[in-house]
Amino acid sequence: MKNNSLKEIAQRLNAAESVLLFPHVNLDGDALGSAAALCKALRKKGKNAWILLEDDIPANLRFMDKGYCTWDFDIIQNPDVCVCVDCGDTGRFEKRADKFGTAKETVCIDHHMTTEFFCDYNYVDAQEAATGQIIFELLKELEADWDCEMGEAIFAAITTDTGDFQYSNTQKKSHLITAELYDLGVDFNKVSVELYENVRMEKILLKNRSMDTMKIIGGGLGAIVYVTQDMLKETGASMDESEGLAQDLRSIAGVEYSAVVKEYEPEKARVSLRAKRRGDVSEIARRLGGGGHTKAAGCTIYAPIDVAVKAVEEELTVAIEELD
Amino acid sequence: MKNNSLKEIAQRLNAAESVLLFPHVNLDGDALGSAAALCKALRKKGKNAWILLEDDIPANLRFMDKGYCTWDFDIIQNPDVCVCVDCGDTGRFEKRADKFGTAKETVCIDHHMTTEFFCDYNYVDAQEAATGQIIFELLKELEADWDCEMGEAIFAAITTDTGDFQYSNTQKKSHLITAELYDLGVDFNKVSVELYENVRMEKILLKNRSMDTMKIIGGGLGAIVYVTQDMLKETGASMDESEGLAQDLRSIAGVEYSAVVKEYEPEKARVSLRAKRRGDVSEIARRLGGGGHTKAAGCTIYAPIDVAVKAVEEELTVAIEELD
Repeated sequence: MKNNSLKEIAQRLNAAESVLLFPHVNLDGDALGSAAALCKALRKKGKNAWILLEDDIPANLRFMDKGYCTWDFDIIQNPDVCVCVDCGDTGRFEKRADKFGTAKETVCIDHHMTTEFFCDYNYVDAQEAATGQIIFELLKELEADWDCEMGEAIFAAITTDTGDFQYSNTQKKSHLITAELYDLGVDFNKVSVELYENVRMEKILLKNRSMDTMKIIGGGLGAIVYVTQDMLKETGASMDESEGLAQDLRSIAGVEYSAVVKEYEPEKARVSLRAKRRGDVSEIARRLGGGGHTKAAGCTIYAPIDVAVKAVEEELTVAIEELD
Repeated sequence: MKNNSLKEIAQRLNAAESVLLFPHVNLDGDALGSAAALCKALRKKGKNAWILLEDDIPANLRFMDKGYCTWDFDIIQNPDVCVCVDCGDTGRFEKRADKFGTAKETVCIDHHMTTEFFCDYNYVDAQEAATGQIIFELLKELEADWDCEMGEAIFAAITTDTGDFQYSNTQKKSHLITAELYDLGVDFNKVSVELYENVRMEKILLKNRSMDTMKIIGGGLGAIVYVTQDMLKETGASMDESEGLAQDLRSIAGVEYSAVVKEYEPEKARVSLRAKRRGDVSEIARRLGGGGHTKAAGCTIYAPIDVAVKAVEEELTVAIEELD
């Protein structure tokens, strides 16, 4: 499996008249930012280009859709090129998979490690902090007519996927590209406000409600909270909106392990586990029938929420004892 | 008032044998990061260099003190040079002001707009996102023997003062300097964990407790919470730890104005006001007898907490009506 060059991919896009872009479902800043920047560049070259979606755009990303997104599968019949953006298999856009297959040529641009080279042309680099960084370079190959809006989209892609330049995937290049975007007159703070000051009230209420259940164990080395279906009803939030809680718990001074236990069904709980510096949650998740990475892992426990919380607490307690 | 060149300041430091550094009280990442990087560079040049403090180092910044900080006013008698770092008048280090005056020469390095040129040598640039950026350039003039630890300190300075590269003060230069630090082998994520995953449990509990008081007004355009002395007792937190609440409130979708009303004394409340996109809180603060910037302002209300909350609510309601 070998990458095509971005030059080759730019040539295929230049030769096309119609291009459909396929970011993954559950859109994030990198997927939509990458697709939006590429879509605008292609339109400025006179192409008939659209981003085809199958689900909603999250509220905090909508500022990037300046008429690029469509849910109309017939917007382009038999597109010259279909591009899969920030994902590496049609399972990430299941409802659109058949449409993807109608293209004369397919292209994959991604930075996920698991990505198969399943398209006619592929550029996959797991070292890249964001697909937006690859798009930035592709647009250079395309000799795109850069503007502020494209800069905003690339910045949104990079800043969200690097955790605002704090995650360990952040590269020197992430900063160098962002520095270049300054020359386009991007209002970076405006993008940040769109991305981060757009939190649903229901999510805030759910966070508050679940933080009330916080239990500290192992002399402060572990922290557990839980989320129940009742809390979702009370606050109007969805279970997705409990995302970020495990990270918040881990940010407490002294805490090395954090866990969020989420009641999905009366006898089914999903658990998110995080480790800070010293611990390994993949091992804890494995013991509970799950798996994951050293610092972030998870599992499903088929038991009532209180039983699940107890099971997690016991495993965390053992792991904490092993820390010393 | 004109800046000396960094070259001149580097010459004065090179000529010195002993140097005392004075970051401001209530140390932040920029003040300590800037001082730590400069202190290490000076020591590597064989200088007797120390950072003199009058208050504690916050837990999340302690990783930067690798034996540079002292509370011993006699550590250097009659220092050759005293450097005021990230502040512009001796009022920011009142208890150390007399000691500062014992230097043969004084230097001020700062990026605050209000800074007077009160030292023998001054370099003040309010355009700089962080004092750490000026120190970075000063160390180049000093031909410092750069290492990873100095890189960590400069990164901590820049990332904290730019809100992780999201605030509007962030510059192209902030990214270019950070990119250069990659060549030193800095573990940026390690620095982030130190800075941000070190939140006191008491602060989390206080936040949760005060968020329970959240009141939404003006059809979702305004959000108010309050903090009482009783909450501080309950949670063990200090009033300082309510910092960040106004920002959290502002991040709620739809909210344009946020306010946190803090009970300092039975008849004295301090108010933090924030605006998101459209509003101007300086005007609201003015009406309540305070002042500040367009997006962040404050005031003091000499009344019981419930009366103060009511007064703020009324002013916010008027301001919200004026938005439309």
